[in-house]
Amino acid sequence: MKNAFYAQSGGVTAVINASACGVIETARKHPDKIGTVYAGQNGIIGALAENLIDTSKESETDIAALKHTPSGGFGSCRYKMKSLEANKAEYERLIEVFKAHDIGYFFYNGGGDSADTCLKVSQLSESMGYPIQAIHVPKTVDNDLPVTDNCPGFGSVAKYIAVSTMEASFDVASMAATSTKIFVLEVMGRHAGWIAAAGGLVDDSIPVVILFPEVDFDEKKFLAKVDKNVKEFGYCTIVVSEGTKWPDGRFLAEQGTRDDFGHAQLGGAAPVVANLIKDALGYKYHWAVADYLQRAARHLASESDVEQAYAVGRAAVEKALEGKNAIMVTIERKDSKKYSWGLGDYPLLKVANVEKKMPRSFISKDGFGITQKARDYLQPLIVGEDYPPYKNGVPHYPKLKKVLAPRKLPTEFTG
Amino acid sequence: MKNAFYAQSGGVTAVINASACGVIETARKHPDKIGTVYAGQNGIIGALAENLIDTSKESETDIAALKHTPSGGFGSCRYKMKSLEANKAEYERLIEVFKAHDIGYFFYNGGGDSADTCLKVSQLSESMGYPIQAIHVPKTVDNDLPVTDNCPGFGSVAKYIAVSTMEASFDVASMAATSTKIFVLEVMGRHAGWIAAAGGLVDDSIPVVILFPEVDFDEKKFLAKVDKNVKEFGYCTIVVSEGTKWPDGRFLAEQGTRDDFGHAQLGGAAPVVANLIKDALGYKYHWAVADYLQRAARHLASESDVEQAYAVGRAAVEKALEGKNAIMVTIERKDSKKYSWGLGDYPLLKVANVEKKMPRSFISKDGFGITQKARDYLQPLIVGEDYPPYKNGVPHYPKLKKVLAPRKLPTEFTG
Repeated sequence: MKNAFYAQSGGVTAVINASACGVIETARKHPDKIGTVYAGQNGIIGALAENLIDTSKESETDIAALKHTPSGGFGSCRYKMKSLEANKAEYERLIEVFKAHDIGYFFYNGGGDSADTCLKVSQLSESMGYPIQAIHVPKTVDNDLPVTDNCPGFGSVAKYIAVSTMEASFDVASMAATSTKIFVLEVMGRHAGWIAAAGGLVDDSIPVVILFPEVDFDEKKFLAKVDKNVKEFGYCTIVVSEGTKWPDGRFLAEQGTRDDFGHAQLGGAAPVVANLIKDALGYKYHWAVADYLQRAARHLASESDVEQAYAVGRAAVEKALEGKNAIMVTIERKDSKKYSWGLGDYPLLKVANVEKKMPRSFISKDGFGITQKARDYLQPLIVGEDYPPYKNGVPHYPKLKKVLAPRKLPTEFTG
Repeated sequence: MKNAFYAQSGGVTAVINASACGVIETARKHPDKIGTVYAGQNGIIGALAENLIDTSKESETDIAALKHTPSGGFGSCRYKMKSLEANKAEYERLIEVFKAHDIGYFFYNGGGDSADTCLKVSQLSESMGYPIQAIHVPKTVDNDLPVTDNCPGFGSVAKYIAVSTMEASFDVASMAATSTKIFVLEVMGRHAGWIAAAGGLVDDSIPVVILFPEVDFDEKKFLAKVDKNVKEFGYCTIVVSEGTKWPDGRFLAEQGTRDDFGHAQLGGAAPVVANLIKDALGYKYHWAVADYLQRAARHLASESDVEQAYAVGRAAVEKALEGKNAIMVTIERKDSKKYSWGLGDYPLLKVANVEKKMPRSFISKDGFGITQKARDYLQPLIVGEDYPPYKNGVPHYPKLKKVLAPRKLPTEFTG
């Protein structure tokens, strides 16, 4: 019998804790095979620093509540392990900590980088004679992991963007006769337009223009499209990805402006787009930048996203118990007409460092919208509501105890 | 028996249609006293242009659904009627249209300006020998109307800001060890800090610094407070009102920057605050501007706000039937310990052009938070969830028919 280690990696989501819940609850169902589940305090650096949260000290109720708690319950980190060649000591330290705490299972919950780390841990542990089963639990709002049909975390952001686009459009529509005619919403997704695409999941009667990172920004064509919408519908909503670029490769968000003190002005793409429209067409605008609100919005989580996030956590443990190693748990779309899904797995050797972009067939011919194919893919991922409990008007989340396991290694890790 | 006219005025909210629903449903209960309820297409300009939506053509189901539909169902407008002296013709045109359509009740759903218009219509109609009962139905996210305990529309924005502040803070808290330590959320409220105050409705364990329009921005004190929070909690969340000003009276949002073409750069207060922190303290930041998302967010409406919005619409009709005129319907707080409320009314003569600011006793001594008194006032307004129905992952709203009543006047209004 071995202990397990679970860590959250990279940007957190509305449902990453549902995966944690899936891992911990499933491990607890196999007390004959898995001892304690330790969680890394602030992700993988918790393992390096030997700061291991003993999840056995948490009550069943509190672990269950993780399913409706946004953000990283045990803390996450942006810490990319260097390559094996560049810093073998770091990987060796990990294995040392795992060995000291009798850890035989490594569940790493993150995106592309963590898939890569997961693979290396598995490889090195073998060569060091202390085998670890390393299972990657997929998570990323960017939806850019390969093989898996979609990534837990994405569906809830997509739902938030679709609903927000719809609500703000209703607002502008009712004011447009005498006031605001343009609303610009900036969304995440620096490299891929999956999140921006969700702005297209509204009723056809709402004129939405989407700016994708995959499509070079054509100012003239864009302004013509916006103007046409205002003339036809009375208003126009624009969903712009933070990753949208000019044809010369510069981000729209790089404004090249300086404040009174000469500091570079960091603006965001939304005000840039809004000002372009104002200058060229004269329409009154409003703009919003959703930023963290979109990925933290557990209050509007997609039910199917929550279920899948939990399921990949559960499956990670089950597959580990089946003896699997160096795999990513994947979501498989079974029937795309009447949406149904199952779980699979895929060798990490083949997924690490591969990024999934939006297929061109998902973007409409003019580059400003989504196709039916995209809609068919995206729609099921935002279906269903899974509301958290509320107290005094705000969501009620438990506070975990986060008791650290006693350290067993003599040395501090200095990186 | 007379017909009624209802119009929506100024910026729309998540619950203004609930007031419309209250007016129309209640009028329908008195077919012996009130004939048709006409709604102004795009607010009061619908009356001036004789574009009257005949709400009797709408089904019971569609009218009931207004209760969960955000924005202005019949269209709103930003159109301030000039003073009686400056443009008497405009008021006379209104009365003419009301007379032509046998309208004896005027329900005007808006903020301070519309209270003023409502009063003038009542006064002039009397002097023109065609008496109209003019009732003001309060609405404003800014919560700045006098006399009434609170304004329908505010509670839902406050709930959205409280929940968003909480969710984003959870996000930053879990990333702060290695990444973002500062999150800045910009909220509405150019003249009063009611909305910003809602950022203080989170758990005490979340370090939130609020910047109010009522308090001159003290950069040094602010930076010290933020730094203290980061050192104590690991991170800091800032909620900044768009109306926050430097001691010299300039808005923080006026950056005085110009882009490559020399255009003035409109930025928002959030990036300014974020950059100040970055420059002085070096912390990594993220910022969001909620803009229309906050006032359109029907998906997260406060149940008590929805109830009150409906109730003021209902009461407007009931009070009209009691013979009242030139009044604003008010919400009265009865018991503040165990929150309960009722409805009253107040002469428009005494409320027009009075703005309710946040009392200083609601702002903490250091100027960066709210007091227990503020919390006691705000808390009940965000309690309860009132979710709209969903279809395909997004809220499902009915489409009104919006059939215009045949015109009766020979001339077009040219303003």
